[in-house]
Amino acid sequence: MSEDSEQELGITKSKAHQTGEWYAEVVQKAELADYAPMGGFIVTRPRGYNIWERLQSNLDGWFKETGAQNAYFPLFVPEEFLEREKDVVEGFDPEVAWVTHGGYNELEDRLAVRPTSESIIAPFMAKWVRSHRDLPLRLNQWCSVVRWEATETKPFFRTKEFLWQEGHTAHRDMDDAWEETMLRLGQYERVYEDVLAMPVLTGRKPEHDKFPGAHTTTTVEALMPDGKSVQGATSHYLGTSFGEAFDITYVDEDENEQVAHTTSWGISWRSLGALIMTHSDDQGLVLPPTLADPQAVVVPIWQEDNVDDVLAYAEDVTAQLEEAGIRVHLDDRDHRNPGFKYNEWELKGVPVRLEIGPNEVGDETVTFVHRPDGERTTESVDAIAETTDDHLETVYAKLYASAEETLEGEIREATSREEILGTIGQHGGYVRCGWCGDEACEEPIKDAIAAEIVMVPLDRDEEPVHEECAICGEPAEETAHFAKTY
Amino acid sequence: MSEDSEQELGITKSKAHQTGEWYAEVVQKAELADYAPMGGFIVTRPRGYNIWERLQSNLDGWFKETGAQNAYFPLFVPEEFLEREKDVVEGFDPEVAWVTHGGYNELEDRLAVRPTSESIIAPFMAKWVRSHRDLPLRLNQWCSVVRWEATETKPFFRTKEFLWQEGHTAHRDMDDAWEETMLRLGQYERVYEDVLAMPVLTGRKPEHDKFPGAHTTTTVEALMPDGKSVQGATSHYLGTSFGEAFDITYVDEDENEQVAHTTSWGISWRSLGALIMTHSDDQGLVLPPTLADPQAVVVPIWQEDNVDDVLAYAEDVTAQLEEAGIRVHLDDRDHRNPGFKYNEWELKGVPVRLEIGPNEVGDETVTFVHRPDGERTTESVDAIAETTDDHLETVYAKLYASAEETLEGEIREATSREEILGTIGQHGGYVRCGWCGDEACEEPIKDAIAAEIVMVPLDRDEEPVHEECAICGEPAEETAHFAKTY
Repeated sequence: MSEDSEQELGITKSKAHQTGEWYAEVVQKAELADYAPMGGFIVTRPRGYNIWERLQSNLDGWFKETGAQNAYFPLFVPEEFLEREKDVVEGFDPEVAWVTHGGYNELEDRLAVRPTSESIIAPFMAKWVRSHRDLPLRLNQWCSVVRWEATETKPFFRTKEFLWQEGHTAHRDMDDAWEETMLRLGQYERVYEDVLAMPVLTGRKPEHDKFPGAHTTTTVEALMPDGKSVQGATSHYLGTSFGEAFDITYVDEDENEQVAHTTSWGISWRSLGALIMTHSDDQGLVLPPTLADPQAVVVPIWQEDNVDDVLAYAEDVTAQLEEAGIRVHLDDRDHRNPGFKYNEWELKGVPVRLEIGPNEVGDETVTFVHRPDGERTTESVDAIAETTDDHLETVYAKLYASAEETLEGEIREATSREEILGTIGQHGGYVRCGWCGDEACEEPIKDAIAAEIVMVPLDRDEEPVHEECAICGEPAEETAHFAKTY
Repeated sequence: MSEDSEQELGITKSKAHQTGEWYAEVVQKAELADYAPMGGFIVTRPRGYNIWERLQSNLDGWFKETGAQNAYFPLFVPEEFLEREKDVVEGFDPEVAWVTHGGYNELEDRLAVRPTSESIIAPFMAKWVRSHRDLPLRLNQWCSVVRWEATETKPFFRTKEFLWQEGHTAHRDMDDAWEETMLRLGQYERVYEDVLAMPVLTGRKPEHDKFPGAHTTTTVEALMPDGKSVQGATSHYLGTSFGEAFDITYVDEDENEQVAHTTSWGISWRSLGALIMTHSDDQGLVLPPTLADPQAVVVPIWQEDNVDDVLAYAEDVTAQLEEAGIRVHLDDRDHRNPGFKYNEWELKGVPVRLEIGPNEVGDETVTFVHRPDGERTTESVDAIAETTDDHLETVYAKLYASAEETLEGEIREATSREEILGTIGQHGGYVRCGWCGDEACEEPIKDAIAAEIVMVPLDRDEEPVHEECAICGEPAEETAHFAKTY
């Protein structure tokens, strides 16, 4: 391998010291995404889209098992519809992309490219829901949305167009709608913990940071290795605000007209950003086996005098893994040496590498190398598929344990403004403290170090961690979690 | 059941005499789609989207098995990119929706909402393809596109926004690219024949009706019951026109730079329109079992004195079908009588109905009713899942045979302009005739009865059906298929 190609292939930035540049380099060199010609847009390449499809397939299955039905609503929303829910339009107006012309003609009424679909879905819920028998109505769509934010592009984390899923449901009362809100929050927590190998915190957004029009916004928060929190998914209980604005009413068992309670819930490809940021390292991408394709790469190491034996053995191992449903790739390219191949598959995040040379052939073994930590083990070739499955599970457990260790060490408490500033300033992570509930007490922290209250406990009756607000000293209403954010 | 609810539920228009109104009524009353507030847009409801998802799942599997990789390119295309392929921009300019504002600000360069993605994908192919080893490159995306056509909305057939799949591939030479073009055409033919239960014709579009920039446009044509042809999917061999316009070049084995040959291929939700139009009837939707959910509905028929026995038996049958992987629904609603349920599930297109009353319970049987023709059979309850599978296969075969019979009787020949006009005017369907290859000879037919040349044979060397052009009498170059179209 020439120095040149090694240079071009490998990651040159340090995760610890140049996190932003390192992230951008991993995304591009692992061929997950590329920058589109228009600022704020990306092209999702097959390796990146494949991860999204696997995440989608998991969640979509759970959604369907629990009563959600997929649908597709128009890409465009008439301005008048957006305005019917004033809270929503006030929230999104500065970020809406507007279509003003169709062909050579100016449109009479301009159309918003959907920033979210409450205001186009709610009128149809109103039309379709007549009786209590039509409830709950649970709709979901996988689509792209556009929000014209003027910030720097960061693939998956910050893009003007992003892929997501948005669920919209209508229910007979608060209890049923709240149960739905929590069901979806639980599914998001599950996808992070069981598919993305990331432990998360769940909570509520403070009142001043809720989704426009929501009664309660619940959130899944993930800690990044640089100590910042990512809002990983949200599930909103919307109360009757959309039901009232769009006349989503139903006739109950006693023939009385009632207003439906609604929810909405979504996860975007930001979850891919969080995944890449959490597990990857200075060698490149690291993926959990749940999402990786391939999950295992077989690298044969041959000399001229044993090439046939080594290749036949490697092909047999590959066939056994395929047979068992493991996503495996045999890298038998003859214009690349094994070292080049190791680097390339490490860069691309393949969870385990199976090395097969003359020693392995002679001893009837296979050498396993784990992507996250380079751990090497030589194993018998008997029952190689089961052995590989065990290694894949071990790699998942390693990734999860490492992320969990980071999270657990990064939740601290503070009892004063200075302590909040100092702790986050020095360590990052989360700081828990008593909070009076007034947005004004978040301001000095935001102004000083750009940290904010990312969540409060889900349970509104939970006793605050301290009796007094850490900032103003008034009685604390709840426990705030301060953190810097993406 | 009240007369009112029956009226509201049932189809009131005649397929034979009011085809357009009947179609619109089936789409809405079977809850497949609804009209959006903006003309030209529809809302795809869960029952409609579910059919799309099943069609998608079939095709997506075949695409992946044959080397295509999914990706996602931006929703917007800069105007300057569209203009780099002048043929494409000339083709789509009158139909492009333009985004001119982001938030409160006017954009410096307006953005097209993609009408198709060649011009945003080709530059990235140019970037990613370096060597012959990078070829073939086969990308696909499932997305929505917008074409601002000013015609009347017809759900799935004619909408300004539609869902589709667009494949884009690059190859080393014409042979390889042509093989790809035919591979995808074959997969479209297969999805019509094996999933949609519709026989189709395959051919080439005449030169003057090719995709802008294409060397060859191949097509799958389906005949509708009203005698019109629907372009069911297209697969284009683009030659080197995009390769040259966007510099998609590669270095071959001899270190020479070569221009790549490209293809593109797509199928849209128009295929759903063709499906609904082909099989459905005056009772409502008819779906092949391949796409239906549920595939079977179990309707228990009870009196007060046997309700427990009948329900227990029906539940047991349902459980056996579920166990065998059949999509089944037990309709045990007690506020609806069996007749109402029959009508409702017929309207919604469930392929087979299983009736279970006291006679069936006593005789250990189940009565099957086929949706397409109402055929009733009473079968033993033993091995009920296998029996149901057989009935589902029979229903598929009935639907296919019926569509095939229609198609076979509707291909006729003609040797003069008058004969073309008379035959299509009287019968509809396809008319095959000799054609000189000049677009001018299509004009008089188009002007008189709005029929056009929907295809010519795939094989350019095939002898024309007649020696002379049916319109001008000059020597025929190929066989034209004239038909009216959707």
